[in-house]
Amino acid sequence: MYKIGIVGGTGYTGAELLRLLANHPEVEVTHITSRSEDGKPVADIYPSLRGHYDLRFSVPDTDTLAQCDLVFFATPHGVAMDQVPELVDRGVKVVDLGADFRIKDTIEWAKWYGMEHRTPDYAAKAVYGLPEVNREAIKGATLVANPGCYPTATQLGLIPLLEAGIVDPAHLIADAKSGVSGAGRGASVGTLLCEASESFKAYGVAGHRHLPEIKQGLQAVSDKPVGLTFVPHLVPMIRGIHSTMYATLTDTSVDLQALFEERYKDEFFVDVMPAGSLPETRSTKGANFCRIAVYRPQGGDKVVVLSVIDNLVKGASGQAIQNMNIMLGLPENMGLTHLGMMP
Amino acid sequence: MYKIGIVGGTGYTGAELLRLLANHPEVEVTHITSRSEDGKPVADIYPSLRGHYDLRFSVPDTDTLAQCDLVFFATPHGVAMDQVPELVDRGVKVVDLGADFRIKDTIEWAKWYGMEHRTPDYAAKAVYGLPEVNREAIKGATLVANPGCYPTATQLGLIPLLEAGIVDPAHLIADAKSGVSGAGRGASVGTLLCEASESFKAYGVAGHRHLPEIKQGLQAVSDKPVGLTFVPHLVPMIRGIHSTMYATLTDTSVDLQALFEERYKDEFFVDVMPAGSLPETRSTKGANFCRIAVYRPQGGDKVVVLSVIDNLVKGASGQAIQNMNIMLGLPENMGLTHLGMMP
Amino acid sequence: MYKIGIVGGTGYTGAELLRLLANHPEVEVTHITSRSEDGKPVADIYPSLRGHYDLRFSVPDTDTLAQCDLVFFATPHGVAMDQVPELVDRGVKVVDLGADFRIKDTIEWAKWYGMEHRTPDYAAKAVYGLPEVNREAIKGATLVANPGCYPTATQLGLIPLLEAGIVDPAHLIADAKSGVSGAGRGASVGTLLCEASESFKAYGVAGHRHLPEIKQGLQAVSDKPVGLTFVPHLVPMIRGIHSTMYATLTDTSVDLQALFEERYKDEFFVDVMPAGSLPETRSTKGANFCRIAVYRPQGGDKVVVLSVIDNLVKGASGQAIQNMNIMLGLPENMGLTHLGMMP
Amino acid sequence: MYKIGIVGGTGYTGAELLRLLANHPEVEVTHITSRSEDGKPVADIYPSLRGHYDLRFSVPDTDTLAQCDLVFFATPHGVAMDQVPELVDRGVKVVDLGADFRIKDTIEWAKWYGMEHRTPDYAAKAVYGLPEVNREAIKGATLVANPGCYPTATQLGLIPLLEAGIVDPAHLIADAKSGVSGAGRGASVGTLLCEASESFKAYGVAGHRHLPEIKQGLQAVSDKPVGLTFVPHLVPMIRGIHSTMYATLTDTSVDLQALFEERYKDEFFVDVMPAGSLPETRSTKGANFCRIAVYRPQGGDKVVVLSVIDNLVKGASGQAIQNMNIMLGLPENMGLTHLGMMP
Repeated sequence: MYKIGIVGGTGYTGAELLRLLANHPEVEVTHITSRSEDGKPVADIYPSLRGHYDLRFSVPDTDTLAQCDLVFFATPHGVAMDQVPELVDRGVKVVDLGADFRIKDTIEWAKWYGMEHRTPDYAAKAVYGLPEVNREAIKGATLVANPGCYPTATQLGLIPLLEAGIVDPAHLIADAKSGVSGAGRGASVGTLLCEASESFKAYGVAGHRHLPEIKQGLQAVSDKPVGLTFVPHLVPMIRGIHSTMYATLTDTSVDLQALFEERYKDEFFVDVMPAGSLPETRSTKGANFCRIAVYRPQGGDKVVVLSVIDNLVKGASGQAIQNMNIMLGLPENMGLTHLGMMP
Repeated sequence: MYKIGIVGGTGYTGAELLRLLANHPEVEVTHITSRSEDGKPVADIYPSLRGHYDLRFSVPDTDTLAQCDLVFFATPHGVAMDQVPELVDRGVKVVDLGADFRIKDTIEWAKWYGMEHRTPDYAAKAVYGLPEVNREAIKGATLVANPGCYPTATQLGLIPLLEAGIVDPAHLIADAKSGVSGAGRGASVGTLLCEASESFKAYGVAGHRHLPEIKQGLQAVSDKPVGLTFVPHLVPMIRGIHSTMYATLTDTSVDLQALFEERYKDEFFVDVMPAGSLPETRSTKGANFCRIAVYRPQGGDKVVVLSVIDNLVKGASGQAIQNMNIMLGLPENMGLTHLGMMP
Repeated sequence: MYKIGIVGGTGYTGAELLRLLANHPEVEVTHITSRSEDGKPVADIYPSLRGHYDLRFSVPDTDTLAQCDLVFFATPHGVAMDQVPELVDRGVKVVDLGADFRIKDTIEWAKWYGMEHRTPDYAAKAVYGLPEVNREAIKGATLVANPGCYPTATQLGLIPLLEAGIVDPAHLIADAKSGVSGAGRGASVGTLLCEASESFKAYGVAGHRHLPEIKQGLQAVSDKPVGLTFVPHLVPMIRGIHSTMYATLTDTSVDLQALFEERYKDEFFVDVMPAGSLPETRSTKGANFCRIAVYRPQGGDKVVVLSVIDNLVKGASGQAIQNMNIMLGLPENMGLTHLGMMP
Repeated sequence: MYKIGIVGGTGYTGAELLRLLANHPEVEVTHITSRSEDGKPVADIYPSLRGHYDLRFSVPDTDTLAQCDLVFFATPHGVAMDQVPELVDRGVKVVDLGADFRIKDTIEWAKWYGMEHRTPDYAAKAVYGLPEVNREAIKGATLVANPGCYPTATQLGLIPLLEAGIVDPAHLIADAKSGVSGAGRGASVGTLLCEASESFKAYGVAGHRHLPEIKQGLQAVSDKPVGLTFVPHLVPMIRGIHSTMYATLTDTSVDLQALFEERYKDEFFVDVMPAGSLPETRSTKGANFCRIAVYRPQGGDKVVVLSVIDNLVKGASGQAIQNMNIMLGLPENMGLTHLGMMP
């Protein structure tokens, strides 16, 4: 059994790691940290864990964490950049679910995250953990930057078009919608049930931190400069992301359905649905799948891609475990084969 | 007191007419029809009406309806086109909340609605009831075609840009989201709480009936041909529409905020919010307002417009009453000044 | 126009007062206070108020408030008890929506609210503002203690039985359920959408502050000692209270339906539904009504009463305005005749 | 691998069986029937099953089903009573998730279910599948009647009190609340999102079909006649049951917490929470657990028990698989060890 640590275990992605890892046959969570809940049993925070974990939260300590084979960081940005380097230097594998190592251009990163990047060398050598694009690099990585939720759904939806070079990359649009759990478990007025339910709104229209991450990923597979308008919205539900993407075809002769099916034919976690399908976020609820459908409305020159994931699973903790499996040489879908919960 | 009739009163728009008209000081609902509920008190269907209406449903009868000053049709498409002409010929004012008279090109209409249009002459002379565009024509109209919900939110958002001629009209995108009440009160699996809550999906991507209606309205204010990609989505909430619109600026020197404020400065029901605002659908819940915000992300050449309404009020019954007020020479906002319900 | 002040206007009951008073023909809100939002327009907090109120929040000041004809206190417990006495002494009418003056036994009050009661004389002379029981006293009152939400729904459901003396008062049970807005607008983890939606739980089982208030009200209409088990629950919705009450009949010959209908036949805001009805909280959503149904399952000796209200209206701000109307000599239902919003 | 059949696979309990069995290591679903969907792949109805099941629905056929080791019936009442006997006679094990074989008194059954019971002999020999009470009998059973959802939550909550003989069994009260999935997947107005969300109501107050089932189970562990008032309510959420139970203690010296902990100390699926806990339905979402808390408010003579389950898992399909495991001699929790999904 591999020993696993979790730093920052009280938030939703930490809890989701615990839920998913509870039934993983080859790993065991041996350490979980939280400064605020030091000494408290994890099941006190999440009663759903009662009977499955004896674990207690402890204050993060590098020597203790260094005993793990792999450590997940589920911390706000700015934390991992300080704590991860020493672990990595001591040979511990790390998957960071936060934003610290996702963007190679740390000057750009600093602009969006409002702080200096203190360990740009590690950002430089971190592997961006989107297995459907970077699988080989992940296999040998010590440090993996787990993608954000919007970036996962959006990149998986647009990459086949850009790789094929059949759309104008300068005028891409991603109109994305997320359940409220994307905002985390912190107490705030805006995500109270009475404020966020029975309503719908856009946010971050002027600029959202996932924009540079998505652009970086898209640029990596495009010869020409990528321009992206990205507008996220808040959906009155707990889990799920739906990204609706619009691009203008430069080649209308391509069979889009075949293109997507071919691109993802060997991907266990990406399901290209039959032509005419309407992916629902709930079909992925609790599961590590991404479902995609592609349209060309009225046979015009616009392509519309619909992509859905569970933001806490394929958009965070599930993908982190997928990366862990790859890094540890385990079957990529181990512990992740359970189905979405419908209804 | 003006006498008002409602044909097809058991659905959500019929119920909403009853709710809103209950406190209107100058009109009285004297007739309400339903074939299936003939003889039943309206309060048996909607207990919220108990104590406010003694009215019973009756089978629709033209002679009886002809005694009304104005009749609302809240019927599925295909019904009003047969029943409205005789009423109109007898001088009764009619506001049709359905789709029968919205589209001037009845050949196009037939294509989208799957049936012949049997009274194209009346479609030709009907006035499209978007008061913020057609107020003068509505004043003298006998027959008003009340706009659809998506078309209301979307036209109010895009018209200022098209009227000013500062965007490329050939590549407009409207990514729209609606609460479930837009699907009506009919029993269907897809709109069950267990199917539609805790999920998000697009629908009608290949083509939705509101597309030709929106295009007709946009084309009317544009010199050049309008091209529109319209993708509606289902939001797990009861009421509300949010339309997110994307256009490419052909003139980036215009002050977009000032443009919108100027366009709607005399409109009681359209609220252009301060720059940087994020309109929430719930701010219009139960009320006849449309709230709009306009953005130019990262100062680029894309304009993003956010427009929210309550689909059952400004998107249906409230706008119908607004039209009624105009047609009857009453103050346009009479009976419609109540505020949105937050939370 | 009567001048109205609101102390503590940023919470849900303050916002609801503003929404309801916006269309009241005889009063005008001239002052609204908030220490934290001093100087901010009220519409910045609640965009639904945009265009209806020019009002800004100000720091509470007794001299300013004393210019009002009536002041609502929508403050956490412990605030009104200090600020109200001077206003009352200067002849200003006050309706306190908080808990400070509801319980006559201020020793008991102190036990449940965890602080000394600093102005017990005012608690003694305050009138408990349940109009259906205390209308005459409210007419002449300067200080009215507006009932809590659970106490309103529960007392209206049990009082007819106790007044008639046909149930065992020692073993009453009230199993009550509330929407999340009852917990207020403060940021807290427990009322986040992700924590409170898609779940149901009891709380306050060991003892809830509304218990002594309900018991006091029930005891007032019963000759024998009242015993009550009260268990509140949290419902994943914004508004609404449903109280399900159980009592054992000591006289099974009484026509329960007739008893309730007779008791409330002159009450505009209490709707005794026909036998066999199932009151839904949504039938009162946004409106000041209480709907009640009474059952005797399987003809046994148990009576079951179902009572629903909107916790923010009849359970708080609507009832406060009802009390205001009575205190100012206005028609009791002025400004409160609008209907519940369905759907 | 044991071969498993499912009769009536299109409803929620059928879908949940498929979801849960997909990862069960010792069984394989080989047949699934649906008259209406004959020939259709199961993943067309539930996209969450895509990639996991190649299975297609077929018309039920006894010879085919007889090849299974065990067949689940997930059919409306009245179906299993006709089809099950022949299978059972041919030695096939059956777990009926419907109501046909739950009640021994088939005259009483007929009264509540509105039809004659056509195979009372099989009702007589069926074993009631509540493992925490009937484990030994289930081991040797060929036909198991899987309990209803309310009966599971309520019996597990009250049985310890009745077995210990410390409450008055004649005046029990169960105030129960269920998510909407308990009403099934049939299209009906009452369970539309627009009708059932943002509202709360009781139903079946005059008498609900689960009442005789619960009474039968309680009577089986009580010496004295059991009287029960049972009021179910509809909660605006998909999954979950919360039963709040009230009883009068005849012996107030008992340590209630210890009593419950002792009763369930060997039960994997029943979690008696620490004193003072407030079980949330979501802690069991998607999982086969029942969580229970017990209270004696204000140290009086009333005991309050709170019991939560997922109505589709421990209240239906999960318990059915638990019974299957027992009947097949497999570890009782095989395939059922996954945790509840929070958030």
